[in-house]
Formats: sequence, structure tokens, C-alpha cells
Amino acid sequence: MKVLVSLGGNAILQRGQKGTAVEQDANVRSTAKHLARLIRRGERIAITHGNGPQVGNILLQNEIAKDILPPMPLDVCGAESQGMMGYMLQKAIRSELDAGGPNLPVTTLMTQTLVDAKDPAFKKPTKPVGPFYSASESAELKRLKGWRMISDSGRGYRRVVPSPRPLDILEKETIVRLFKAGTVVISAGGGGVPVVRDRDGTVKGIEAVLDKDRTAALLARIVGVDTLLILTDVEKVFINYGKPNQRGFDKMTVANGRRYLAEGQFPSGSMGPKVESAISFVADSGKRRAVIASLESAEEALRGTAGTTITN
Amino acid sequence: MKVLVSLGGNAILQRGQKGTAVEQDANVRSTAKHLARLIRRGERIAITHGNGPQVGNILLQNEIAKDILPPMPLDVCGAESQGMMGYMLQKAIRSELDAGGPNLPVTTLMTQTLVDAKDPAFKKPTKPVGPFYSASESAELKRLKGWRMISDSGRGYRRVVPSPRPLDILEKETIVRLFKAGTVVISAGGGGVPVVRDRDGTVKGIEAVLDKDRTAALLARIVGVDTLLILTDVEKVFINYGKPNQRGFDKMTVANGRRYLAEGQFPSGSMGPKVESAISFVADSGKRRAVIASLESAEEALRGTAGTTITN
Repeated sequence: MKVLVSLGGNAILQRGQKGTAVEQDANVRSTAKHLARLIRRGERIAITHGNGPQVGNILLQNEIAKDILPPMPLDVCGAESQGMMGYMLQKAIRSELDAGGPNLPVTTLMTQTLVDAKDPAFKKPTKPVGPFYSASESAELKRLKGWRMISDSGRGYRRVVPSPRPLDILEKETIVRLFKAGTVVISAGGGGVPVVRDRDGTVKGIEAVLDKDRTAALLARIVGVDTLLILTDVEKVFINYGKPNQRGFDKMTVANGRRYLAEGQFPSGSMGPKVESAISFVADSGKRRAVIASLESAEEALRGTAGTTITN
Repeated sequence: MKVLVSLGGNAILQRGQKGTAVEQDANVRSTAKHLARLIRRGERIAITHGNGPQVGNILLQNEIAKDILPPMPLDVCGAESQGMMGYMLQKAIRSELDAGGPNLPVTTLMTQTLVDAKDPAFKKPTKPVGPFYSASESAELKRLKGWRMISDSGRGYRRVVPSPRPLDILEKETIVRLFKAGTVVISAGGGGVPVVRDRDGTVKGIEAVLDKDRTAALLARIVGVDTLLILTDVEKVFINYGKPNQRGFDKMTVANGRRYLAEGQFPSGSMGPKVESAISFVADSGKRRAVIASLESAEEALRGTAGTTITN
């Protein structure tokens, strides 16, 4: 089976961890073991992943060092996180495949994701990124850099950036070529670096964040996989989550998924975009499926005995 | 002709610049114009590049923020710099090729370079990396982290790391596949992230720096190019540099190059490894050539009318 695996942040950095290289390395090794098991079962996999905590740390390092070194913009920080996380993943998967086979090439491609400069998201930035600021710092940043700032969870002010819709992947031809050749391709980390095209065609990086599962749904269609496997830190999709009438699903139709989304059953920062992306991959297709499951149950999820399988 | 272009640090960040994203972007755009001209002449190019100033800045950001965020080791910082610089280069080259053709895929591959854990360099670390420290900080880092420290140019103490010889490139199969397919492949930035194999085969990143031109010579053989084009900020190879009897070369044989190297004509931190790498690529081959030239004269250098061409 052809599978695009979309790894959540917890595959590399878990809640409550500080994010040392040793912690991340241990998490990535464990993730690589799960992925290698899928490959040994004969699944043909491509991989994408989130980058929230990592790009947050890189932004914070840039901010703290800003009096000495010019801080890099968000698109460049995102590219740094793609390099960092791709390296960790490909090193760990390489080690697994060298130890237990099969001997497939593993590679990370730096990926740029095209968005529309007229996407309505640019008028309404919603995604907080980077460090917290005081009210006066916040006012200064608004004035100096034109940043949009919000008061965030009582801890201070944060920059908000838009989250436009991914439209295309500039490196798609190479991703498809390598996937067809049997390579384990890691791409579009953090949803890819968001770029727009100027009127003269020049590609320009923009300061925005992409939802990695939205990009994953696009990438899954581009690569032509049968299954989009979204791995996260919950075991399946629930409605009425945390309430007495909570209900988890082994299976969900596109129609029901849309209904629950419309009811506001899924938080916009977490399960919402996953269900939306699953639906956007599956809808209007006969055979495609999306599975939302925990990293630990990846194998069972592909067999249909764990997680939530979404079909038409 | 098949050409591996090895870009010096000045292709991305020039001496005296602060390293803002705007400066780097402008340099990279200019570099991309030179590279696009080569491609339009019909050259089939692969690209590699240095990362000295960029990885230095990332290390310094990690150091400054270390009380708040766990600093990443040198191999991870190197991977970040590959992501950052690969992104900048591929964005600029993509823009150039979209504007003036030809429509070739452009991609950056995260690259790991295998070294020998028994390389004698590990016993004698020589390459200063990262920030300057006071004498007491230096003593503390020696004690706490086991770092080797040197007193550097009267400005304080710096960590020194080994510079082992690159032996193999873990992602070579993918690099070759994409090059053959006509893709403009950017790989082995900063010489690649240096890794060793443990006894059980596990790939482990190590804290070392690679000479990017040494890796370039290896990569040039792996890819099977005819020409290794080393672009830097000097116009050609000189002996007796800066003296009244200074002499620049349009052509140099391997035998003469070896003789001048033995005479200590070339500084070990700059022209020395370039001439060595040129020789290691050209030696024992009938037709191969290496050219050392300035970025601005890349086209003339390939025609043999600028720079120094090294042949057997």
C-alpha cells in the first residue's frame, strides 16, 4: 500500500520535555522503529511532519540573540527547522533500515509550499508564533516591524501571523520521482516553507505558518498514495470530548466528519484541521482513506484495528 | 558538460556584512543569476556550498539563549544551516529558471557525510567553532563538556573540533539519481553533516567540521562530473601571494600543484584545501579538470578564460 505518514510534534518532542538533543534523538529513534515496521510490512511510505516546538525554539533563540545577530525571518527559521528535523529523522530511519532492512534510500527534501498572496488569511492573522512580549515591547514591534500582536492567555503579547491555504508544492516533481523509485522521502516539514509568486514570477518567502496536515492532504494527492496516516498523541477521533457522553470512532464517513466539524466538535488548533485534511484527501475519491491514530498504534491503524478510519 | 559547482561562503554572505536576511537574499540572487547562465549555456550542474558564517551564527544564537533553551550540538546546527542555505539557494534558482528557463526541477537534499571514527583528526582537533569565551568560562567548558579549547587570536578562548576526512555520502544514490534526471541538486552544504557508524551500524552525528571542498571532490567523483568548479572570492591560484614575486596561474598541473602545496604556498584555512581537493578530483583521471575562480567569472572559468584550471 502507498501511505503518506504525517507525524505530529510528539514524534520528535513530547509535552513537558525541554527539547534537548538527547530527548529529541530518543523520540525520533522510537518513531523510526515504528516507521521501519511499516516499511518491513511492505508499505511504501512517504513522510511529513510538524515543526511547531522546534521553529518556536529557533525563533526564540533569534529573539534572545537579536542585539548581536540579525534575527532571521519566519520563513528562514522554518527552513532551519526542516533541516534539523529532516536530519534527525533520516539519520534514525537510515540506522533502522541498515540494521533490519530493507536497504532503501532515505532522504529529506527542502520544500517550499505555494500559497496565494490574496488568501483571505493574510487579512486576519490568527496563529501566535514566537516569544511573549510585554505591552510596551508589543507596541514597539507593531510600530517598527508592522507585526500584528495579540494578548495571549494572560502571559503577555505575542505576534500572530496568517495561516494561508497550501496550493501547490514547488518540489513536487522531485518528491514524486523519488517516491516512485522506492526512496523514503521526508518532505514538507512544518507544512513546507510558505512562498508566494510575485507578479514577475519571483518566488518570495513569507512570514506565515502552514497547517502541516493541510499540506499533508495536498502532498498525499500529489504523491498518489492510497492512505493518509495522521499520527498524533490521541488514539482516535472523539466527539463530546471529555464529557460524560464522549464517543470515539473506529470509522467515520466524510459526511459525518463534515457534520461534526460544522457542530464545532473538534478544536481548531488540534483535531479540527486533522479531520478537515482527512476529509479533503478522501472526498470525491472511491478508494482513498485517511486514518487518524496514535504513533504507537501505526501498524494496527493501517490494518484498521486502531485509530479512526475516514472513508467516503 | 557536467559540472559540480562548489560555492564559497561569499556566494551567500560577504565579508563585512552583518548577515541580515536581506543581505543574504541579495547575494544569493546574484549567485543564482550566475548559475542560471551556466545552466542556459547547457551545462548540467550540481551545487554544493560552504556554511561557515551561517553555522557560526546559529551556534552563537544557541550559546546566547542557553539558559532558556537547551543548545543543540554542532551536527544539528549544521543541519539547520543546510536547511537555511538550501532554501535560500533553491528559491533564488527556482525564480531565475522560472523567469528565463530552462524549466528544470531544483531541490536541496539534507546530506550526511560518513567519516571514520578512527580518523587521526579526532586526536588533534584544529578547527575553531562558535563564540569566544573568557579564560574561566573556557576552563569550565573543558571540565563540564570535555571540549578542547584554544586561545584564539588574542580575542579569548574558542572551542576547537576535529576536521576528519569525508569518506562517503549516505545520500549518494539519491543525489546521483536526481542529477541523472536533470534536476539541479543542492547537497552536502557545509560539507554535509559529519556522521560515524557505531559498531552496531547506528548512524551517529558527531561534533566536527568538514572541509566543504574535500567533500566537493568526493561528491564530484560520486556524481561523475567532468569539471569541479570551485568558486571563491579570489580570481585565481597564486604563489608567493602578496609578495613582489607573486604569480597567478591560468593553468596548473597536478604535479606542480603538489609541489606548491609541499612548499607551503597555500594557507591551510583557505586556498590549501581548495588546491588539495582540486588535485584529489583530477589525479589519476584522463579527462577531468578542476577550476578555481571567482564567482563573478564562473562562465569564463568554464571556458578556460578565467581562473586557474588544474589538469593532469
